[in-house]
Amino acid sequence: MLDTSPLAPDCFPDLPPVAGLDMAVSEAGIRYEGRADLWVLRGQPGTEIAGVFTRNNAPGAPVIWSRRALTARVHRGAPRLIVVNSGTANVFCGRKGVQAVCETAQGLADVFGGTPESVLISSTGIIGEPLDPSRIIHKLPEMKRGMSDNLWEASARAIMTTDTYPKGATATADICGRTVTINGIAKGSGMIAPDMATMLAYIVTDAAIGQDALQTMLNEFNATSFNAITVDGDTSTSDTVLLVASGTVGYDKITDAADPALTDFKFALSSVMLDLAHQIVRDGEGASKFITVNVAGAVSDQSARAIAFSIANSPLIKTAIAGEDANWGRIVMAVGKAGEPVDQDLLTIKIGPYILAANGALSESCTGAGVEAYMKNAGIELFCDMGLGKGCFTVWTCDLTRRYIDINADYKS
Amino acid sequence: MLDTSPLAPDCFPDLPPVAGLDMAVSEAGIRYEGRADLWVLRGQPGTEIAGVFTRNNAPGAPVIWSRRALTARVHRGAPRLIVVNSGTANVFCGRKGVQAVCETAQGLADVFGGTPESVLISSTGIIGEPLDPSRIIHKLPEMKRGMSDNLWEASARAIMTTDTYPKGATATADICGRTVTINGIAKGSGMIAPDMATMLAYIVTDAAIGQDALQTMLNEFNATSFNAITVDGDTSTSDTVLLVASGTVGYDKITDAADPALTDFKFALSSVMLDLAHQIVRDGEGASKFITVNVAGAVSDQSARAIAFSIANSPLIKTAIAGEDANWGRIVMAVGKAGEPVDQDLLTIKIGPYILAANGALSESCTGAGVEAYMKNAGIELFCDMGLGKGCFTVWTCDLTRRYIDINADYKS
Repeated sequence: MLDTSPLAPDCFPDLPPVAGLDMAVSEAGIRYEGRADLWVLRGQPGTEIAGVFTRNNAPGAPVIWSRRALTARVHRGAPRLIVVNSGTANVFCGRKGVQAVCETAQGLADVFGGTPESVLISSTGIIGEPLDPSRIIHKLPEMKRGMSDNLWEASARAIMTTDTYPKGATATADICGRTVTINGIAKGSGMIAPDMATMLAYIVTDAAIGQDALQTMLNEFNATSFNAITVDGDTSTSDTVLLVASGTVGYDKITDAADPALTDFKFALSSVMLDLAHQIVRDGEGASKFITVNVAGAVSDQSARAIAFSIANSPLIKTAIAGEDANWGRIVMAVGKAGEPVDQDLLTIKIGPYILAANGALSESCTGAGVEAYMKNAGIELFCDMGLGKGCFTVWTCDLTRRYIDINADYKS
Repeated sequence: MLDTSPLAPDCFPDLPPVAGLDMAVSEAGIRYEGRADLWVLRGQPGTEIAGVFTRNNAPGAPVIWSRRALTARVHRGAPRLIVVNSGTANVFCGRKGVQAVCETAQGLADVFGGTPESVLISSTGIIGEPLDPSRIIHKLPEMKRGMSDNLWEASARAIMTTDTYPKGATATADICGRTVTINGIAKGSGMIAPDMATMLAYIVTDAAIGQDALQTMLNEFNATSFNAITVDGDTSTSDTVLLVASGTVGYDKITDAADPALTDFKFALSSVMLDLAHQIVRDGEGASKFITVNVAGAVSDQSARAIAFSIANSPLIKTAIAGEDANWGRIVMAVGKAGEPVDQDLLTIKIGPYILAANGALSESCTGAGVEAYMKNAGIELFCDMGLGKGCFTVWTCDLTRRYIDINADYKS
């Protein structure tokens, strides 16, 4: 068991019940002993679900299944079901893996009702070890009897693998004069180790919003939250983010993401997603610093994104920050290697409030006690103004420490 | 001073003189005390030079200068000159950096003859510290008096920064019944730390080959040697490879790279370049394993290259190999994240002679004493057969160890 990350929040936030949704956790003994490793979330009939999944071209059987389940026909009056296990990722298990997913979905439908085709499944843990679906299925009747609307922290813990703390966030928003709740839980510790550190997030609300509108909002905010973080540049085969709306709050269901009634909701949703994304970075393997990389003045947002990720994924910059060194030369290198337009004479680089380089050369404030003291903070902000246009993007990452190597070199598959 | 890499060759090879070329080294005291940090190479009039440079979009002033020098008009009867200093990279120094390059070139032309525009310049060392050209210029008269055709090891040492050993290689080839020599020296330790570990290589021959033909061959072999290695995925602002042909061997100058007379020469040239490229990886910061990543069966060579680099740059794979763990799951992840076509059911993964995965699932030989013993070797071969086509590519890299973090986190800019 790893020590809790030094960047962890003080405690798990107080997540209220969300009407129309209940859940259960169980110790299925898939890989871990003496802890919950199975979570079922049930939405009342009519619940709408949107999802985004890993872009890895070798996705796991649960991801392939869940992509299809999002578009499956849901029987009127049937509940919507999400099941998540930790311990094995059920990835690269050939036909056995596909079989395990089918049997798990059938098991859920048998116990809770509805069709197996609409059950969403996530698995996280080691790759290549097939999931034994009977371990899940024989726990389901007991879980059904124990369904509760108030098990958020236990749920966040059940989906953990190498995470050192459970991750949750909550917010409220106003839609048409009614207050709706948004809760989210997530897991991930590395972006993203495939063995034990897939990124998963489940965001739920009692708002009444149609699937297409949910999907549009999820895509938009995913780009600037879960898709704007990196720990080690590696991409899991199982990443999944689901957005679930039970629709219990009484107003006409909103079906257009551009509806002005969603303005406040969008703000709250993006806050919850960003909060969870930051918590994943703060639990990055071996992290000792939380790093914000702001790039502005690029020729486009896409160009700014490429430059920000080039900086955030550079092992040389991440090790420099671990060593509390304001190594602006490595930032120049990473800006240049992104392959995006650069004019060195227009480039400005800041660390925190200190201008390190401007007009193609070193600034006088690049050394000295101010910068040196700033580098000792647990939160470090890097800022690059390219001086070329209006494109901007922000990426969050953590430093690269001896502990990352310890965790990943000592791990045995 | 760092300890010599455990992967270093036993000794510097015996490089013979190359007719038409001589050189000198000097202690200019640019940054280091008590060691040579300056090298001048002189080619007799008529010497032809080809070059490839960093793709980083924030290149140093010496790179910008040298790119132009390759196409400058060379006075008949004037020597060709290359000057290299270690200690400062003269990168991101604004107008001062450009001025330093101009003055250095003028100084060379004043002492050795020829025009400043045709002098090639490389600088390697820290970024952002301007080069003081007078330190170079006042050493030149003494260096001119001491020119010798037999200073290869001293030259390889003069261009070192964080390298833990000097890098050289030599071969002979037959062109039109005459034996020509190819010598090469290189430096680099990380692909490539911008502070102190730019990659530089200088390959020289007495063969008579025109500039265009040299450039064609350099581009071709560079793609599969210096551009097929990675230590940390970072790209220097100063990378330079020059190919110099003095043309002293008596036959008609060959001007077409496709000339069949060059067949043996090409083989020898590619061997020298690959040898030097491997030596750079073997001196990778903190390296304890030399890793060969072979990808075959991809839809194209380009696709195979992307997959091979995705594997070779994955911190999770590099740390697993440092930990002597045959973690094939991380290889599946890296194959998938390359964004190239994958059919999991056709994928075969081998480590050394052991098949770890085939037909979309784990092979039985993936665990056991055989693989475990193999992982203790200093050389590790990974092989992925995508099963899709005929595309193949090989990349060389090293593992990611605690020492990489030690070297890069403890370094102060």
